[in-house]
Amino acid sequence: MSDQKIGIWLIGAWGGVATTTVTGLAALQQGLTPEYGLVSALPQFAGLNLADWSQFIVGGHEIRETSYHEAAADLHQTSRVFESSTLDKIAETLKQFDSNVRPGTLMNVGPTITSLANGEVLKFTNETPAETLARLTQDIANFREEHDLAHVIVVNVSSTEPPQSDEIKSLSWAELEAKIKAGDFPVPASTLYAIAAMQAGSSHVNFTPSIGCDLPALEELAQQTGTLHVGRDGKTGETLLKSILAPMFANRHLNVMSWVGHNIFGNLDGKVLDDPVNKSNKVHSKDHLLTEILGYKPQTLVSIEYIESMGDWKTAWDHIHFQGFLGTPMVMQFTWQGCDSLLAAPLVLDLIRFTERQWRRGNQAGIMGFLSSFFKSPMGTDLPQFHKQFDLLEVWAEEVAAE
Amino acid sequence: MSDQKIGIWLIGAWGGVATTTVTGLAALQQGLTPEYGLVSALPQFAGLNLADWSQFIVGGHEIRETSYHEAAADLHQTSRVFESSTLDKIAETLKQFDSNVRPGTLMNVGPTITSLANGEVLKFTNETPAETLARLTQDIANFREEHDLAHVIVVNVSSTEPPQSDEIKSLSWAELEAKIKAGDFPVPASTLYAIAAMQAGSSHVNFTPSIGCDLPALEELAQQTGTLHVGRDGKTGETLLKSILAPMFANRHLNVMSWVGHNIFGNLDGKVLDDPVNKSNKVHSKDHLLTEILGYKPQTLVSIEYIESMGDWKTAWDHIHFQGFLGTPMVMQFTWQGCDSLLAAPLVLDLIRFTERQWRRGNQAGIMGFLSSFFKSPMGTDLPQFHKQFDLLEVWAEEVAAE
Amino acid sequence: MSDQKIGIWLIGAWGGVATTTVTGLAALQQGLTPEYGLVSALPQFAGLNLADWSQFIVGGHEIRETSYHEAAADLHQTSRVFESSTLDKIAETLKQFDSNVRPGTLMNVGPTITSLANGEVLKFTNETPAETLARLTQDIANFREEHDLAHVIVVNVSSTEPPQSDEIKSLSWAELEAKIKAGDFPVPASTLYAIAAMQAGSSHVNFTPSIGCDLPALEELAQQTGTLHVGRDGKTGETLLKSILAPMFANRHLNVMSWVGHNIFGNLDGKVLDDPVNKSNKVHSKDHLLTEILGYKPQTLVSIEYIESMGDWKTAWDHIHFQGFLGTPMVMQFTWQGCDSLLAAPLVLDLIRFTERQWRRGNQAGIMGFLSSFFKSPMGTDLPQFHKQFDLLEVWAEEVAAE
Amino acid sequence: MSDQKIGIWLIGAWGGVATTTVTGLAALQQGLTPEYGLVSALPQFAGLNLADWSQFIVGGHEIRETSYHEAAADLHQTSRVFESSTLDKIAETLKQFDSNVRPGTLMNVGPTITSLANGEVLKFTNETPAETLARLTQDIANFREEHDLAHVIVVNVSSTEPPQSDEIKSLSWAELEAKIKAGDFPVPASTLYAIAAMQAGSSHVNFTPSIGCDLPALEELAQQTGTLHVGRDGKTGETLLKSILAPMFANRHLNVMSWVGHNIFGNLDGKVLDDPVNKSNKVHSKDHLLTEILGYKPQTLVSIEYIESMGDWKTAWDHIHFQGFLGTPMVMQFTWQGCDSLLAAPLVLDLIRFTERQWRRGNQAGIMGFLSSFFKSPMGTDLPQFHKQFDLLEVWAEEVAAE
Repeated sequence: MSDQKIGIWLIGAWGGVATTTVTGLAALQQGLTPEYGLVSALPQFAGLNLADWSQFIVGGHEIRETSYHEAAADLHQTSRVFESSTLDKIAETLKQFDSNVRPGTLMNVGPTITSLANGEVLKFTNETPAETLARLTQDIANFREEHDLAHVIVVNVSSTEPPQSDEIKSLSWAELEAKIKAGDFPVPASTLYAIAAMQAGSSHVNFTPSIGCDLPALEELAQQTGTLHVGRDGKTGETLLKSILAPMFANRHLNVMSWVGHNIFGNLDGKVLDDPVNKSNKVHSKDHLLTEILGYKPQTLVSIEYIESMGDWKTAWDHIHFQGFLGTPMVMQFTWQGCDSLLAAPLVLDLIRFTERQWRRGNQAGIMGFLSSFFKSPMGTDLPQFHKQFDLLEVWAEEVAAE
Repeated sequence: MSDQKIGIWLIGAWGGVATTTVTGLAALQQGLTPEYGLVSALPQFAGLNLADWSQFIVGGHEIRETSYHEAAADLHQTSRVFESSTLDKIAETLKQFDSNVRPGTLMNVGPTITSLANGEVLKFTNETPAETLARLTQDIANFREEHDLAHVIVVNVSSTEPPQSDEIKSLSWAELEAKIKAGDFPVPASTLYAIAAMQAGSSHVNFTPSIGCDLPALEELAQQTGTLHVGRDGKTGETLLKSILAPMFANRHLNVMSWVGHNIFGNLDGKVLDDPVNKSNKVHSKDHLLTEILGYKPQTLVSIEYIESMGDWKTAWDHIHFQGFLGTPMVMQFTWQGCDSLLAAPLVLDLIRFTERQWRRGNQAGIMGFLSSFFKSPMGTDLPQFHKQFDLLEVWAEEVAAE
Repeated sequence: MSDQKIGIWLIGAWGGVATTTVTGLAALQQGLTPEYGLVSALPQFAGLNLADWSQFIVGGHEIRETSYHEAAADLHQTSRVFESSTLDKIAETLKQFDSNVRPGTLMNVGPTITSLANGEVLKFTNETPAETLARLTQDIANFREEHDLAHVIVVNVSSTEPPQSDEIKSLSWAELEAKIKAGDFPVPASTLYAIAAMQAGSSHVNFTPSIGCDLPALEELAQQTGTLHVGRDGKTGETLLKSILAPMFANRHLNVMSWVGHNIFGNLDGKVLDDPVNKSNKVHSKDHLLTEILGYKPQTLVSIEYIESMGDWKTAWDHIHFQGFLGTPMVMQFTWQGCDSLLAAPLVLDLIRFTERQWRRGNQAGIMGFLSSFFKSPMGTDLPQFHKQFDLLEVWAEEVAAE
Repeated sequence: MSDQKIGIWLIGAWGGVATTTVTGLAALQQGLTPEYGLVSALPQFAGLNLADWSQFIVGGHEIRETSYHEAAADLHQTSRVFESSTLDKIAETLKQFDSNVRPGTLMNVGPTITSLANGEVLKFTNETPAETLARLTQDIANFREEHDLAHVIVVNVSSTEPPQSDEIKSLSWAELEAKIKAGDFPVPASTLYAIAAMQAGSSHVNFTPSIGCDLPALEELAQQTGTLHVGRDGKTGETLLKSILAPMFANRHLNVMSWVGHNIFGNLDGKVLDDPVNKSNKVHSKDHLLTEILGYKPQTLVSIEYIESMGDWKTAWDHIHFQGFLGTPMVMQFTWQGCDSLLAAPLVLDLIRFTERQWRRGNQAGIMGFLSSFFKSPMGTDLPQFHKQFDLLEVWAEEVAAE
């Protein structure tokens, strides 16, 4: 098995998360870095025979023209991440991965994302939805064939789309497919990418807040095509902490009166979220779990602000105002100073390895609920507590190890 | 059942935690306050037929002379806790409880605690250990008989003793009993109180960092006397958060390089902990769990400082320095501004109710490991993660509810 | 002198700041509290022969119906401020002050403030501007005569108005007066109150962000009427800190890249500021001084959010991202947990005492620039640094003391 | 003037502060970095004709064997400071400066510092004080002659010594000189370096908390030798903030009840300060100014802890508990995340430029009080407020500019 090649196909291939994922992968392939941040490298998953770093090859869709080298140098400059010496040593690998990147689509991504686009992608702005879908699907299939890949996992790590009309949530796959053919329905790009993945026989992971595969129609398609999928919105920082801390307040019967979270950061994601329409998708994803965990709705406020000087570093300040015994008000505050892409990237690699392992079991299709601990709005589970979600992963690992 | 009376016997009966426990109990008996902070009032424990607030009567041992009214007024003044109107309404109840308080013992409590003592307790400084033990036991027995109590739960909420020699940990109950009779061995006061409780047929809860019943000899005695016990060191603030947050760093494979915690507070406990000997007991209790949860030892530092102006309010500042993907250093900081006695008091009431319920099942004796989520150094379990400890409580509750 | 009576006329007389000012004044008159928070009680102002607390009598304009007792009890309840025993002792004084409160005006205060109004003020909604002005002026004059007051200082401590058109800034007093008579120009309520004060021969202090007397026309009127005035927007918390800290960054040549400030609070002011129109006045007032002090414009962000559970407590979190030597990015963060009304009220009393002392010098009129350290947007000075503003006050004090 | 060479002689020449100073100087000489952090580069000092970066040549005393390149690479590695590309470009300059470094002395530096020593300095451990002094003086004189320097400024940036007996403070220069000759008195190394500087005709700046030139005997010697000197303990972080913030609490009459400061950092200085004897010198220097500024003594606590993972980054957490109006307790907290060496180094360069300028005026000798804003325990002034200290510098600059 270990000499089989596995494909990683990244939507938003030269973005911050993708670039960090690829930089990290290349560094891991050369043994240049410890495995910190990688859940799949924990001892409890050692017996799973997960894929080795050396097996992975990267390609993807992108709407801008740049390169891994340039994008990584930019992150190094603005955010003081990566060692210069590491970037030198992996330059050749990054160049090979660059050659696998293809133009994506701007269909229904909204004006803010569209304004960032340049290069080849602009040639395809007159495509019909059906043409776009066919092209995207073909790109993935070509990648698999060209590199003789055992399997391809398609991961969406692109910028957050504006929310779409709710109509799509009520459609069956047949209805959605008909609308795509008719060309008169605003199918989100994230959903087109997911369909392309499934139709190409690939697994699909939606790491973004965009709707992607989180639709009844797509679950139907996954079952039809025998493909795996999961999402939505990688849980890397403030929301991770909410899913950790809120159970404490619940279990100790401390009455959370208000929970305020202010987030500042300065990367491209921040710029896109500065558009209030795109932001609304994100804020919702960060906010709902408190009510689910606590069983009541405290006053909440989540702000996400673009502060250019922060670069890829996100600082969250949370202020939790709660009542203890005899109604006494008390306060917990935390600040979280994390580097967004470096928190996200190892989770992307973990999701790829766990998904590949699930695919290798054979005869698996549909939503992978055991991966819910990785997501802010996890599909396939209604457990909002992080530790209960993590239990699902450990139980899955025990099952797989026992096979 | 619900008209049977239950006794609460508090060691350190007029201290901050005890005063707050009693104030809260009296307020609950009159329906003057919501049940926030009380774990036993959570929905998942509603089916247990726990004792009603109206059933409880309070007494205890103390080494200073004051009263609940005075101690509560002092807390109100220095720390802005309790409503004046509440204190007025419960004055009569507090006075009744005052009349059940008896002089404790200063045996081996160290010079700092001894310097706080006044009044009747000073008459007993020439007692032999055996005399002290007999007196303490008789006090509890008298309390039970006088008020016709179904059961008495003895809870130690007194100040932290200095640590004792380790020899006591290797003694059997027969050996320890012989040494008490011989009178030439430094038995800690907290252990004498625990023995008194067990010999009086009471359950015993050690809410302090002192050694108390956390000894093989005492477990032996508990089995002999058919009594229940548990401890050690109520988990109210910074350590609670450690047991919540450290699993996140472990599960996400984030490498904790250092975890620094500075605590400032200004109550009597703080004054006692300003003595470095007494403090060493406490700091150990706050520090060991990180290594247990993480599986390696980061650099840690815990400081506890007495800052008079804080009164009963404790502020903890924690600085967690960790490495993520590609070795990138990141920082989480939190501050916790909680009122120490008001965080502790409801847990004392919870422990009493759960212990009483366990006693009521019949034929139960020894350490109550299912209560480990309440303690910094829990007895009867080796699970350091809060959520796993809380699972034990929920499993116990399901068993009891099913009986 | 010391038996002469002095009048304090508060606009927003039963609001949080006014209620706290009056509660504090009454407590000071009875010697129930130390003089903390009062600048005028500092040693460097001891030689000025400032008015004694016993000399002051309070009245004012208000748009809601309540009483000092009720408003103070409400603050005590929601925000844990004031001692119950203090409130009991000053009840009689508060009642007397209640009887001097008259209905204000809703002219051009915007829908959010209007929605809070009730009672007698609603009778006057059909007045012309000239009628309103005459009524407000007469109220002040009546207050002075009825109580035989040597002087009345009118202080605006009402909620923030929405900003008005800029046209009013270019008017002379004659033009503005004509427009008031014509009744076809939206004169802000805060300006009407200021005109009423001056026409009644009173001094005027604008403690709010509303425009009030900060107009060329009003300075003209002050000179004509020989009255004193000053403003704008009391500097109590986050902005005070900005005016203290920004000079350090400037003097050390540390390059402030971004300065983010998030403010949360839950009093009536907060509710009014939840209206974005009213808020814009406030945010501007908090933001401009950074550019003035630093000499360049860093990216700034000021948010003010209404979080009900906070009551009168305001928490500000500021994140300052700056570059030091060799371009190295560093961070300072602070949190400020202050009680808004209790920070503002002593400054109101200070402004009254200093203004009264300036009036007593005789032959003084116009803007009192020496009071600029009290304001976010000080009139009569272009020095944004707090310590330079405070120097002005000390120099004035030396002059007055030397007379 | 601008082609004359000026010598910088650093005590602790390869330490963190010195290495950063030299790295920064070399980068400034090549125009590789903006002048952020340099006070002397502010507009208000533009008219002083200060020395140009190109004029400076570096040498110094050191007790360890390493090199600027190695020391800078180490800082880059452990603390993520400096650009790799900058280090490459200045490598040649650093090598030249390395060749001017000479062995210092271990006389009375205490066991912690002695344990760090290696190499050539160990040859001199049997010297008498007089021999050491002669050697150190000759090193400075040789440096001046060899490079044909117009003036040499000796700056002590070495680790903190343990405090010495107070006897030295009461000695005249004649008495101290006699004792050095007799060889039976523990003269601190920092004082020997200062004497050597003055006897070599150099100016002396003591940037450390060690006693150095802060002695009546040394001021006498400065007057005799016509040399300039100043000190003590560069004010870079937490104490700078205290000298900025405490005046606000004083001017607003807010009663500071307690001020707690916890500092964590991981550089060599931190290791030395982990020795409680060395630390006591430092803590005193950080603590006294609060009482001076406030006029009363709040409870204070300053802790400095060595946390290895922090590298050169120092994080301070300060908790200020104060009472406002009506005795209401409020809290300000701040965290300061600064890179110690990068905060100190530009101040070292500023002190050198300002000192050289003062020397160039001619006929100046003794303590330079106008530089007090740079020090925690400034010599030659009793003004503890930063803004008043900075006023002294601006006044001096106006005088010099006017010459």
